[in-house]
Amino acid sequence: MKELPVQIQLDPEDTRHLYEQIYEFIREEIRSGNLLTGEKLPSSRYLAESLQISRTTVDMAYGQLVSEGYLEARPKRGYYVCEMEGLYDIPAADRILERLPGEGNRCRKNGVSGEAMVLSGERMSAGGKHAENAGKYRYDFSPNAIDMSLFPYMTWKKITKNILVDARSSLFSLGEPQGDRALRVTISRYLHASRGVNCGPEQIIIGAGNDYLLLLLEKILGRHIPVAMENPTYQKACRIFQSFAYPVSFIPMDESGMRTGALRESGAQLAYVMPAHQYPSGIVMPIGRRMELLKWASEREERYLIEDDYDSEFRYRSKPIPALRASDHNDKVIYIGTFSKAIAPAIRISYMVLPARLLRKYRETCSFYSSTVSRIDQAILNEFIRDGYFERYLNKMRKHYHGKQELLLGGLREMEKDFVISGENAGLHILLTDKQNRSEEELQRRAEGAGIKVYPMGDFYMETPPRTNRKAAVILGYGALPSEDIREGIRLLKAAWQG
Amino acid sequence: MKELPVQIQLDPEDTRHLYEQIYEFIREEIRSGNLLTGEKLPSSRYLAESLQISRTTVDMAYGQLVSEGYLEARPKRGYYVCEMEGLYDIPAADRILERLPGEGNRCRKNGVSGEAMVLSGERMSAGGKHAENAGKYRYDFSPNAIDMSLFPYMTWKKITKNILVDARSSLFSLGEPQGDRALRVTISRYLHASRGVNCGPEQIIIGAGNDYLLLLLEKILGRHIPVAMENPTYQKACRIFQSFAYPVSFIPMDESGMRTGALRESGAQLAYVMPAHQYPSGIVMPIGRRMELLKWASEREERYLIEDDYDSEFRYRSKPIPALRASDHNDKVIYIGTFSKAIAPAIRISYMVLPARLLRKYRETCSFYSSTVSRIDQAILNEFIRDGYFERYLNKMRKHYHGKQELLLGGLREMEKDFVISGENAGLHILLTDKQNRSEEELQRRAEGAGIKVYPMGDFYMETPPRTNRKAAVILGYGALPSEDIREGIRLLKAAWQG
Repeated sequence: MKELPVQIQLDPEDTRHLYEQIYEFIREEIRSGNLLTGEKLPSSRYLAESLQISRTTVDMAYGQLVSEGYLEARPKRGYYVCEMEGLYDIPAADRILERLPGEGNRCRKNGVSGEAMVLSGERMSAGGKHAENAGKYRYDFSPNAIDMSLFPYMTWKKITKNILVDARSSLFSLGEPQGDRALRVTISRYLHASRGVNCGPEQIIIGAGNDYLLLLLEKILGRHIPVAMENPTYQKACRIFQSFAYPVSFIPMDESGMRTGALRESGAQLAYVMPAHQYPSGIVMPIGRRMELLKWASEREERYLIEDDYDSEFRYRSKPIPALRASDHNDKVIYIGTFSKAIAPAIRISYMVLPARLLRKYRETCSFYSSTVSRIDQAILNEFIRDGYFERYLNKMRKHYHGKQELLLGGLREMEKDFVISGENAGLHILLTDKQNRSEEELQRRAEGAGIKVYPMGDFYMETPPRTNRKAAVILGYGALPSEDIREGIRLLKAAWQG
Repeated sequence: MKELPVQIQLDPEDTRHLYEQIYEFIREEIRSGNLLTGEKLPSSRYLAESLQISRTTVDMAYGQLVSEGYLEARPKRGYYVCEMEGLYDIPAADRILERLPGEGNRCRKNGVSGEAMVLSGERMSAGGKHAENAGKYRYDFSPNAIDMSLFPYMTWKKITKNILVDARSSLFSLGEPQGDRALRVTISRYLHASRGVNCGPEQIIIGAGNDYLLLLLEKILGRHIPVAMENPTYQKACRIFQSFAYPVSFIPMDESGMRTGALRESGAQLAYVMPAHQYPSGIVMPIGRRMELLKWASEREERYLIEDDYDSEFRYRSKPIPALRASDHNDKVIYIGTFSKAIAPAIRISYMVLPARLLRKYRETCSFYSSTVSRIDQAILNEFIRDGYFERYLNKMRKHYHGKQELLLGGLREMEKDFVISGENAGLHILLTDKQNRSEEELQRRAEGAGIKVYPMGDFYMETPPRTNRKAAVILGYGALPSEDIREGIRLLKAAWQG
């Protein structure tokens, strides 16, 4: 059994949890080349014994490294270092900070620290059927709906009241086109702490929703940009690109996400990806695939990646996975985050982080577009995040949603002979893939017969004609359903599908 | 002296003011063809005597008809009916209401009634110099700044508080893409009462500012639409069209506004006009020119007029002039209004009224774009308008701005030998046209020497090379300046320009 090349020094004074210390140590060993592709790690039992810590702590660290694609777990054999492209490109890090003025030094550290606190984006139901079918179903397992029952309305009201008490006319005057600096500073700090993203407030543009930010991005990028999307994908973003008359290629995915070979063949200049938790498949893109995508983007000046980081804050089984943008040493990732899922869809505040070259283009050609977000709303949100309410709310919701998910998975356990369950590490929906040869239409029809709305995976595939060699799968969202509805809904589904 | 063909019947029970009754009677006589082009009206003295009312009342009615282009005042000769194209097209009226479902009958009346209450839009300073030069000048006569000192902050806070007290999660959920129906109903009523515009709430799209609405309009109208703009014009709208790569033609204006001949020659499909109070010239487009523009638009299916109705609520010398859209019997006007000037730039709420054909296109191709305005903000604004606070605030501000304008005009009286003063019927700025042969550069330089920021008209002209046969003119805005600053600023200007 191979020992780690350097003995891990655990520091009990360190504010980081032990598992974080192990995770970061091994990650740096891999990044620095001390651990090489294909090398086997000590078993978790051996490492736990030699460090005199619990085996669970080691399992958590290994689990995180597997989630992020640094390690691979081979059944009955152990953990191995994965193959990763371009991982040793670290000297180029933080190049952006040298090129742009601002708070560069403040956020040089490239790691992830602090509590899990990650942003989300608004997803629409496939074809907007959710709204259409309201009332037709007893239980709707929509993957888009969120639970507002624990939202701190009183806090929100209190902040609103305080801001209006202090309101001077300046708050009612037109703010900066990119959004108010105070909120951009808060978002840049938040991105650093929760997503490992290092950017200055001058790189952030605040806008009224992701759709608006994409409209603005079209003006920055220009006409006829061929774009690649994952397949299946978030249909609304696809419709928006099509409304720009951007040629869209749909790139098949494997278990790591978008296939880079097919991306290369597509001739796209722009790739739209959801690395933290792909919608709707739930795939977490491992570090190796991330590096391949970053390499693809770095090969041509006009290539960019759009990272839609829509729901990674609700991650249940390990600490959050850093954003793709956090590994982006060549300044090729346009990062888009939103408060639609983490706070409320109604507040209409999203933001994007622009690479330096696109920021210059924005300033030259688009900075006359007025901000689309009210200054009062910006001030309220700023205080909500800055004073820690957002973090507390996210922690509460993560537990709350995790509890709902456990309930759902518990109810589904008896169905495991018929379905593979996946996508349960994060987000507000899971995936059931049929082991028999039933069609999605059949699964959907039977569920409908029992008054249950489920979402067939086929609705999220964009190709024509649809692929036929795909296993039937349906999506079950649980964000908005009360516990009793989840329990009863699953009971009915079981009867409908097994009957 | 010619008598009116039909004796005016004044009704003391009528809720309308006497001058409105006279105004509407004569307008209908002209529209119905009872009074023909070139016919002379009775003198105001004669009409006042025959109706046993004050001459001021008749003068007000005649003044309104002149402002709207129905009558023409020939010095020392009296009032004559103007030439107007296509005025007798009234049977086609309200065609839109027959085509679309909704509250058609509620708003069939085509006239203007109620208190003057008209919307406004945000203007930027030419080249954004206002912000750059902050601190460099003692007094800045910016045409864009507004006065927030009388804004009913307490009322706004009270409404906000009440809405948040009642806040259910529905208020925090994603609303309708066009904006919440309650606010659209309120806006459609307001448009009917204050601007003579008849439209159902289903034709209204609410968005976060005019810039966003133009971005959405591009998606509805499509690519490469040649657009015509007045010259001089609102530069920001021009930059937005140019960012769409729309070919823009700049159409010269005469004293009635955009010249229709040059518009025809331009090959444009879209004409962007500000009929109520052209920015920056202050020209009110008379009914004859309006009819010519509407006729131009009706000749081809793809032609449309964009009516930017940005500041007509601040009209001081007669009741407001109906919107161009109010005379639009062929459904060719895209009406854009905003609350940026009438309430505050920070609230980021504008709206547009779409013709039926474009509304269909919007629904087919763009209705998946989420609303850009927070539902909470929509609810606050809805209550502010619906409960009469907006109307009261506008009335207060109209008096307030009128007082500032009187002060400004009083101070400028001694300069009338050097300048022609114009544009004083509405808005928050006036125009000084030089009678001598000084250049705008000279006027600006001398003003700057005295610490005063004025805005040369040349900055608003779009052609290259600039026209040289134009008289030098500067714009003085007075919206945001306190009375004492206006007084002192004018004193300094006088010394600088006459010295």
